[in-house]
Amino acid sequence: MSESFQDVLAGLADIVGDNYVIDSAGDQEPYVVDWRGRYRGRAVAVVKPGSTAEVAAVVRYCADKRLSIVPQGGNTGMCGAATPDDGACNVVIRLDRMRRVRDVSPLANTITVEAGCILAEVQAAATAADRYFPLSLGAEGSCQIGGNISTNAGGTAVLRYGPMRDLVLGLEVVLPDGRIFNGLRALRKDNTGYALKQLFIGAEGTLGIVTAAVLKLFAPPRSSALALLKLQSVAQALEIMKRLRGAVGDRLGSLEIMSRSQIEAIAETVPHVTIPFELTTPWYLIVELTDTLAGIDLNEPLATVLSDAMDAGLAEDAVLASSLAQAKAIWAVRHSVSEGNKRSGYVVSHDSVVPLERQAAFVTNVEARIMAAVPHARVVMHGHIGDGNIHVVALIDRDRCSDPATTAALVAEINEIVDDETAAQGGAISAEHGIGITNRGRLARVTDPLDIDLMRGIKQLLDPNGLMNPDKIFANKHAGAA
Amino acid sequence: MSESFQDVLAGLADIVGDNYVIDSAGDQEPYVVDWRGRYRGRAVAVVKPGSTAEVAAVVRYCADKRLSIVPQGGNTGMCGAATPDDGACNVVIRLDRMRRVRDVSPLANTITVEAGCILAEVQAAATAADRYFPLSLGAEGSCQIGGNISTNAGGTAVLRYGPMRDLVLGLEVVLPDGRIFNGLRALRKDNTGYALKQLFIGAEGTLGIVTAAVLKLFAPPRSSALALLKLQSVAQALEIMKRLRGAVGDRLGSLEIMSRSQIEAIAETVPHVTIPFELTTPWYLIVELTDTLAGIDLNEPLATVLSDAMDAGLAEDAVLASSLAQAKAIWAVRHSVSEGNKRSGYVVSHDSVVPLERQAAFVTNVEARIMAAVPHARVVMHGHIGDGNIHVVALIDRDRCSDPATTAALVAEINEIVDDETAAQGGAISAEHGIGITNRGRLARVTDPLDIDLMRGIKQLLDPNGLMNPDKIFANKHAGAA
Repeated sequence: MSESFQDVLAGLADIVGDNYVIDSAGDQEPYVVDWRGRYRGRAVAVVKPGSTAEVAAVVRYCADKRLSIVPQGGNTGMCGAATPDDGACNVVIRLDRMRRVRDVSPLANTITVEAGCILAEVQAAATAADRYFPLSLGAEGSCQIGGNISTNAGGTAVLRYGPMRDLVLGLEVVLPDGRIFNGLRALRKDNTGYALKQLFIGAEGTLGIVTAAVLKLFAPPRSSALALLKLQSVAQALEIMKRLRGAVGDRLGSLEIMSRSQIEAIAETVPHVTIPFELTTPWYLIVELTDTLAGIDLNEPLATVLSDAMDAGLAEDAVLASSLAQAKAIWAVRHSVSEGNKRSGYVVSHDSVVPLERQAAFVTNVEARIMAAVPHARVVMHGHIGDGNIHVVALIDRDRCSDPATTAALVAEINEIVDDETAAQGGAISAEHGIGITNRGRLARVTDPLDIDLMRGIKQLLDPNGLMNPDKIFANKHAGAA
Repeated sequence: MSESFQDVLAGLADIVGDNYVIDSAGDQEPYVVDWRGRYRGRAVAVVKPGSTAEVAAVVRYCADKRLSIVPQGGNTGMCGAATPDDGACNVVIRLDRMRRVRDVSPLANTITVEAGCILAEVQAAATAADRYFPLSLGAEGSCQIGGNISTNAGGTAVLRYGPMRDLVLGLEVVLPDGRIFNGLRALRKDNTGYALKQLFIGAEGTLGIVTAAVLKLFAPPRSSALALLKLQSVAQALEIMKRLRGAVGDRLGSLEIMSRSQIEAIAETVPHVTIPFELTTPWYLIVELTDTLAGIDLNEPLATVLSDAMDAGLAEDAVLASSLAQAKAIWAVRHSVSEGNKRSGYVVSHDSVVPLERQAAFVTNVEARIMAAVPHARVVMHGHIGDGNIHVVALIDRDRCSDPATTAALVAEINEIVDDETAAQGGAISAEHGIGITNRGRLARVTDPLDIDLMRGIKQLLDPNGLMNPDKIFANKHAGAA
């Protein structure tokens, strides 16, 4: 770069204004470290453009000066995809100032939002119009819609509503060359050529910066019923799911499973959460039914299925939540999983998805193999069993993780076990978290070279200079990287 | 091509066997003309491989000999996307022999099928397992799943279940170079890099040949209620939709609208269809509610909404179907639209989609502009109003269409009116039919050049020699074409 950094800062300030170019290390701190604290990078500047035109101008400027761009949403990602590397020429772009809900249409069941909107704000705007935006996840109070789209976020409502990809109708994206892809259309159907918008959903900011979106809204759930089941196995959970599908059709809203070890990790470390049931079996299943009409009795059909399941020896016990407070207390356990694990040790977490029928074999095999290889690990599991997505987490005593090289080798060993078992069951190593930096090497190891070849081709097509979020998903900046 | 056609036929027969290489003009006839009879092409051979490996071998052979490939499903497409051009070097590939339902999983709610399966067979296989495959369209008795995927088919169940794109979990595709993209995974979530499978859905066979798919299944609808409403305007239909959404939540299954002129065209020309209601207003709306549980009374809430709507002056009349036979008679009118139009004149049909709020203005403007420009045209309309997709059809007296050049000019004039009005309302010119040959020039006219540029880049990436279904969607074979 022939310019000095001062020239660059001035050039960026010319576009977005002095107040929105952050260059001091102290002010940059929240943006150059991922929220797990695993990755720390460097940036010439963190820039906060105020409009799509400004985003485009910043991108063109960076392209011209050969500066790498790192788009960042709420910085709540699990895989380091929004953290700059330690290179000297990174510009982090944040859309915090693009936070407007542009339109809510109850008739069309759509909401048009700028990418910097917080997920919880979008949920609230939908609710205010007596509509429902279903995406729901732990970080919803701080994650941004642009990041949710760029990571194809999942969460606890996927079973009924699908992941973020299924919720996006239209997209506006600033491409790596600064051109604006104008796909911000509120159309339910569109067969005019290739599905370009799909490229950007889940691309982790490597193909452009999502600046606005039209999202689907739904009729709000107005009746619900919730139960907690105590089970001996994942196979029992699957059989109960099958019975629920038969009995309540598409009213099945959530199906979340936790291992006993997972709940124990929470019980031991998260003081503000009380476990509102006794731990007497290896597995716990939260079942939630919902209906979009008010006044529908869902407790009765739920109770019938559960009572039949117990009679058939499929569950040890079932607790039907008799109040909203009781339901909230059960959900509070599920929502404390990340916190509990973080407090319980060094977290080696996974995001495998396998065909639904394979989940029982998957969890049995993967736990046995981890325990055989790393006897001091504590294996805990939680997941979205209706989606085939079980998070296998190995908790390692922090005392054993003081040496980075030893820790890295241990993590790699556990990852390899989980990845191999995932592949053996016909699954994928990332259901909802993405690839980012964390899983880049693992993706390369388990993916058909043809797929990687196509992905590289698409990256090359849209970003020939490799400046848009480089080295995320796969290496493209440094020839030697994984 | 240095080889003789005889050498090519022998080379293809070496791969698929003598019986599956069709070279005589008589035997080729069903495959070189589109079902509307608008396009007629030529082929060296129509080839029917019996496996994915054979498809790949045929594709490699064609790539090697620089033969153009035209993948063809059931040959029921609306836009000529599966018809060869009149060049001398086309090979049509049909998957009729790849017709196996490989797996049905009621637990995972998935069905794995080969691409040559007829849509109705897939529906039946789902039903046999007490599941439901929702894609439903007029040609379901002969269209093939591979074609449904390649055209991202729509139909009458999109409102509730989405188009084909939303129903595809996994895909196997033979790429233009003969490599096999192995994405045939039954995974509900998958964030391992770019969403490659999305590229092939709706690509009209220009990026590869879909050979197998894993599709989503659902709980079957077990209760339903149906009504026919007589309306003064599309605006009334939209208001009623809004009320239905509030009253019955997500039980709204279908919302199909027809103009009086549309129903008259059917009444006059389709002898086996009786219109089971009097034509007293300009617009007719079919409302169907469904529930996945048996024994749910949907007639009562439907009657309440309709009665309130009539009291509010939103409908002239409403007929609640009191029997399955009556419901079928009403659906029979809707399903006779294509036949009635074909019998009523030369059909200039359109497939516009606009934001839901814009539909009322769209139909008013477009009809007025067509009638002003072409006073002898008869404008009829039908469509999926809950999706924003209204088919505007101009019927022209066949006597006026004897001269091809005059007819082409007339069609172009009408298309231009519809396309301009569609664009003015923020819509797209193809909601569900696709582009193919028919709409290629129109796509180029109304599409952002950036989009076309990206599409061409993707085509070039996957098919650098331009041999896979050339000149469909956009021109890539002959530099001079539209």
